[in-house]
Amino acid sequence: MKLTPEQIEQFDRDGYLFFPSLFSPEEIRTLTEAVPAIYERREAYNVREKGSDAVRTNFAAHMYSEPFARLARHPRMVEPVRELFGDDLYMHQFKVNGKMAFEGDVWQWHQDYGTWLNDDMMPEPRAMNVAIFLDDVNEYNGPLMFIPGSHRKGVVEARHDLNTTSYPLWVVENELIAQLVERGGGKNGGIVSPKGPAGSMILFHGCLLHASTSNLSPWNRVSVYLSLCAVSNHIRRFKRPEFIAHRDFTPIDCLPDDCLLEPYPVDLPWKNGMPASALATSLEPIDQIKQAA
Amino acid sequence: MKLTPEQIEQFDRDGYLFFPSLFSPEEIRTLTEAVPAIYERREAYNVREKGSDAVRTNFAAHMYSEPFARLARHPRMVEPVRELFGDDLYMHQFKVNGKMAFEGDVWQWHQDYGTWLNDDMMPEPRAMNVAIFLDDVNEYNGPLMFIPGSHRKGVVEARHDLNTTSYPLWVVENELIAQLVERGGGKNGGIVSPKGPAGSMILFHGCLLHASTSNLSPWNRVSVYLSLCAVSNHIRRFKRPEFIAHRDFTPIDCLPDDCLLEPYPVDLPWKNGMPASALATSLEPIDQIKQAA
Repeated sequence: MKLTPEQIEQFDRDGYLFFPSLFSPEEIRTLTEAVPAIYERREAYNVREKGSDAVRTNFAAHMYSEPFARLARHPRMVEPVRELFGDDLYMHQFKVNGKMAFEGDVWQWHQDYGTWLNDDMMPEPRAMNVAIFLDDVNEYNGPLMFIPGSHRKGVVEARHDLNTTSYPLWVVENELIAQLVERGGGKNGGIVSPKGPAGSMILFHGCLLHASTSNLSPWNRVSVYLSLCAVSNHIRRFKRPEFIAHRDFTPIDCLPDDCLLEPYPVDLPWKNGMPASALATSLEPIDQIKQAA
Repeated sequence: MKLTPEQIEQFDRDGYLFFPSLFSPEEIRTLTEAVPAIYERREAYNVREKGSDAVRTNFAAHMYSEPFARLARHPRMVEPVRELFGDDLYMHQFKVNGKMAFEGDVWQWHQDYGTWLNDDMMPEPRAMNVAIFLDDVNEYNGPLMFIPGSHRKGVVEARHDLNTTSYPLWVVENELIAQLVERGGGKNGGIVSPKGPAGSMILFHGCLLHASTSNLSPWNRVSVYLSLCAVSNHIRRFKRPEFIAHRDFTPIDCLPDDCLLEPYPVDLPWKNGMPASALATSLEPIDQIKQAA
C-alpha cells in the first residue's frame, strides 16, 4: 500500500486521510470478538464512563491481547505512516475507545500533540493518530469530528478539563474553535466527520483538532485509536504511566498482510499482568534518569 | 396550506412531517432577534443548562414577547394541525429551546404524551408537537432524532430522570429504544434526523420517541417547540405551573399569513410579569376544583 501524491498533498492540507473499508469484516471480527475480554479486566488500564460501568477507554491491549498485538504490526496501517514520516515507528499509545450504545459520553475539542509535548516531552508532532472502526460509524453513534486544516495552527493553548467526563483532557477554548471552524469553511466544510463501515481507517495529524458527541444510539461505536511515533522523535519523559505512554522505542516489525486471519506468533509481555514499573512515573527527563543510574 | 393525502398517510405511518424552509429568512429574523431579550430574564420560565448560564429551555414566550405571540397564531403552522385533528386548537406548551453552541446538552430518548397524560391528565394524544428551526440545523449542532413509526407503540413505560441534565424528564429504557429502532429499520432508517435551514418546520406526534445529542459545534441550534392541543382534549389537571402547561383553552384565532412581517396587534398578558396564579399548582382534577368553588 503506497500513498499517491494526491493523498500526501491532501494530508498536508487537511490533516487527515480516510480509507473506507480498509480491513475486511472477517479481519475486524477477530478484533471485535476480543473486546469483551479486555473490557472485563479490573485494571488501571480500563477507564470507565462517569457513573457507569461502560468502558470509555482501554489502554495497551496490544500488550496482552493477541488480535490487538497483531493489529499493532499490520502493514496496511504502519506502512503509509512510515512513508509520510520517512522514519521507523514505535507504538506511543494504543487505545480501544468504547463510545458504547446509550452510554458513550462526549470528548471535548482537543488536539493530542499538546499532551504529548507537555506531559511526555515528545520533541515534534511526528506521531500519527490512527483510528480503526470496529463498528460501523454513522451520524447517530457519536462519530469523530475534525476541523480540517486546524493542524497547521500548531500547538494551541488549552486548559485541563477534569470535570466534564471521567478522563482528564487538555481542551481548547470555544472562541478558538469557532475561529478555526470559520477559517476552515464554516458551515461548508469547517467541520467534517468521516463515516463508514467497520474496518475503515483514518490517519490524522497529532495537531488536528477533534471531538465527538455522546452516543445516544443503540449501536456501539468501538474504535481502536493508536499513535505511531517516529523513533527519532521518542518521548523524553515518563510522567504518565507506561500503559498510557509507552517506553519501548524499538521499531515496529510488520507482520504479513494476512496477520489478522492467520495465527502468527506475537509477544504479549503483559499477558499475565502489568509489571509494577509500568505504573512508576517521573518528572525528570530520561537522559537525566540515565545519568543518575 | 393544505396537506396532501400522501402527507397525511406519511404522518400516520412515520409519526412526523418535515417542511424545509417553510418560513423565510426575514420571517425568522424577527424571532431570532427577540431571543436574547427573553433569555435574559431571571424568571422561573428560563431553565438553564447544568453548571452554565446558557438557557436550555425558555417557556411561554408567546405570553410576553410580541414576535412569538404572532408565531403562536401563524396559519402556516396552525392550519395543517387543525386539518390533521379536525378540531380547534389551543396552545398547550410553548418553548424556545437553546441547544447553544458548545453548551447545549443532550435530551435523552422520551415521548411527550406520557408526561401530558400522567402529569396534566390530557385524555388522548391529540396534541401535536411543532418544531420550528430558528437556526440552520446540521449533523453537528445536535439535531432532533426520531424513531419513525414509534408513535404507533402508544404510551410506553418511562422512568423519571432527575440527574442527567438540568431539566427533569420521563425517559425510556435502552432496551425498548433498541427494539423500536430495530423494528423501524435498524441502521436503514430506524433513526432519522430532519436537517435544514432556519425556517424549516417539523410536525411530530406526541407519542413519537425523540432525543438529541449535545451541541459541540460553534453554531447555536435554537428552536421553537410548541404543542397544539385539540380543544376538546384539553388537560384536566394543573399539576404543573401554568408557564409549562397552559390553562387557557380558547381556540387559537389565526392572524394573516404575513403576521411575522407586519405589526398586527397581539395580546401579551404576561408582558409585565407572570401572575402568582401561574405558579399555583394542584393535584386535583379541574372538574373537582370547579365543584369546590
